[in-house]
Amino acid sequence: MPNPTAAMLVIGDEILSGRTRDSNMHHLAGALTGHGIDLKEARVVSDHAPSIVAAIRALSAAYDHVFTSGGIGPTHDDITADCIAEAFGAHIDVRADARALLEAHYARTGQELNAARLRMARIPDGATLIDNPVSTAPGFIIGNVHVMAGVPAVFEAMVASVLPTLTGGAPLLSETLRVDRPEGEIAAPLGELAARYADLSIGCYPFIRNGQPGANVVIRGTEAARVAAALDDLKAALD
Amino acid sequence: MPNPTAAMLVIGDEILSGRTRDSNMHHLAGALTGHGIDLKEARVVSDHAPSIVAAIRALSAAYDHVFTSGGIGPTHDDITADCIAEAFGAHIDVRADARALLEAHYARTGQELNAARLRMARIPDGATLIDNPVSTAPGFIIGNVHVMAGVPAVFEAMVASVLPTLTGGAPLLSETLRVDRPEGEIAAPLGELAARYADLSIGCYPFIRNGQPGANVVIRGTEAARVAAALDDLKAALD
Repeated sequence: MPNPTAAMLVIGDEILSGRTRDSNMHHLAGALTGHGIDLKEARVVSDHAPSIVAAIRALSAAYDHVFTSGGIGPTHDDITADCIAEAFGAHIDVRADARALLEAHYARTGQELNAARLRMARIPDGATLIDNPVSTAPGFIIGNVHVMAGVPAVFEAMVASVLPTLTGGAPLLSETLRVDRPEGEIAAPLGELAARYADLSIGCYPFIRNGQPGANVVIRGTEAARVAAALDDLKAALD
Repeated sequence: MPNPTAAMLVIGDEILSGRTRDSNMHHLAGALTGHGIDLKEARVVSDHAPSIVAAIRALSAAYDHVFTSGGIGPTHDDITADCIAEAFGAHIDVRADARALLEAHYARTGQELNAARLRMARIPDGATLIDNPVSTAPGFIIGNVHVMAGVPAVFEAMVASVLPTLTGGAPLLSETLRVDRPEGEIAAPLGELAARYADLSIGCYPFIRNGQPGANVVIRGTEAARVAAALDDLKAALD
């Protein structure tokens, strides 16, 4: 059976303006690969409601799971929860369970649960809360969409909460062979290997280091014996 | 007049598997912002032809410019050029001008222009070549799509070749104020500021440093005097 598929949606002007370099996509990609879920697509959109709604609808229909990051804080540019509600045609308001979490947190820390912070308790009807062990304000799951925070420490904690609840397939195994030759010289044997091992994914990732071209050949698959056999054949072919 | 819009398409399994952390998106985002072109969306897709073709068609129709990275090398997993040709309904084959570039390069370096390397001269009819000062194999432009290499050194050199040929709008200016208070405490004055300066983009980017919450407030706009006035008002409001 093929592995479940997933997409990620990163929400935030700061990534698209070049101000911030996203790290959540890289983190999620590694976590999903280890869990046997295939990340098939990622998108980054700005804090623009129609763009968020359209992306959620497209990705939710195309993949088994969708993971979002960003836009669930207390400020005016945090519009993700309302956009998700719109995408699912769900009613959204401050919800008692989320409000109770925030009330307890702010009472404990001696801070005020003001109107802005209360926005973080806006959760669509029918959604399940995602625990936030770092700063309390929860994420949520509605349909096949997991809505999580943009701050990397919080995002990573939410991924750790959510992933064990999802059924993964066989984890993807990979072997990498670094070849200090230009990829143009190894392309022919590599193409033959890829044709012979059609059940594996064989990628060639060129680099330039100290002015010298080289390539990492990565062999990916779910059966350890097949991956090992392909690696042996690759080494023999390049000798 | 609003600035031209752009989208980026990153092509490659290695990003989605978590093996490689993309840097080209962050580089392009900064370069476009400085040039007065608004990057509105970015997507990452795997080396899967139908996904690449569909993404190119969608982004090319929605934005003024599209920039791609990855998949134009000599190996079996380099399928970008053929996918772009399919998206535009253009014929593609080894083209004489690109072949001449490669012949000269490999003659100079004493390497063989073999069948795999010749694949890098596959250019759709009607496309304009993009200079590759690093490793010769060219990128190309067809319609509003700029097709560039995935290796960061080559991608960045191609961006430097291409950007001066594109008409930009007013470069986006930005001012950042770091606030060492949780964003929930500054959300109300920030929302009022954003409403009063509707011509500017005002974003709030929370962080957790040494366990303490804070936020960077970023004010963006194309008129220096307006950005400065908003920054003054922000400082006064938070005093």
